[in-house]
Amino acid sequence: MVDTIETDETSRLIASNKVEGTAVYNRQNERLGSIYNFMVDKKNGQVEYAVLQFGGFLGIGNDYYPLPWSILSYDTSQGGYVIDLDKDVLEQAPRYSAGNEPAYDKNYGNSVYDYYGVTYPY
Amino acid sequence: MVDTIETDETSRLIASNKVEGTAVYNRQNERLGSIYNFMVDKKNGQVEYAVLQFGGFLGIGNDYYPLPWSILSYDTSQGGYVIDLDKDVLEQAPRYSAGNEPAYDKNYGNSVYDYYGVTYPY
Repeated sequence: MVDTIETDETSRLIASNKVEGTAVYNRQNERLGSIYNFMVDKKNGQVEYAVLQFGGFLGIGNDYYPLPWSILSYDTSQGGYVIDLDKDVLEQAPRYSAGNEPAYDKNYGNSVYDYYGVTYPY
Repeated sequence: MVDTIETDETSRLIASNKVEGTAVYNRQNERLGSIYNFMVDKKNGQVEYAVLQFGGFLGIGNDYYPLPWSILSYDTSQGGYVIDLDKDVLEQAPRYSAGNEPAYDKNYGNSVYDYYGVTYPY
């Protein structure tokens, strides 16, 4: 694309379109999936979930796993996000399939964040 | 794309990839441009800027105008964001061209937010 700009990351900030599509690994170096998108509070601009895409084949049958933004850390040497998470734990995690998206209300937030051992702060 | 999910917005949250590309209008119903992407704090997940793309032709010669997230409001009847901003004011606003991105440090944040009459809170 001709309108791509180059600085999509500073020491402190990252561009939304750089986050999307970025691979996610665990500490055992297993690829867990990639970031599909992330959900932002319309009013205060706080990112509540990064949505991991995982499973399926060529995009068919994918499941979507909302993650607390805070458990992701970017590892430049991996070229992706690293989270401290066993594949087995991810496989039991809250997820949804296309067309079955959650309401993303406070109850849902509590259950997702709880699963990853993080307090839902919103 | 087969992996597109449908719920990209709830009453409270919006998906990152729905924000990108969304048209921006002012209160006089003039189209100011569209959201190119937005810049997120890597640690705390706070969106600091939505970047408006404006000017140029077919993406060549575009300028990028970082805006405080808080001045954008989504108008479902317009199918886009509305900001209270004259075109003349936007034309004088802080901007950069491709390849000339700012450092996005605190000084820059203060000057951008000041221009729009908002206190830079980060």
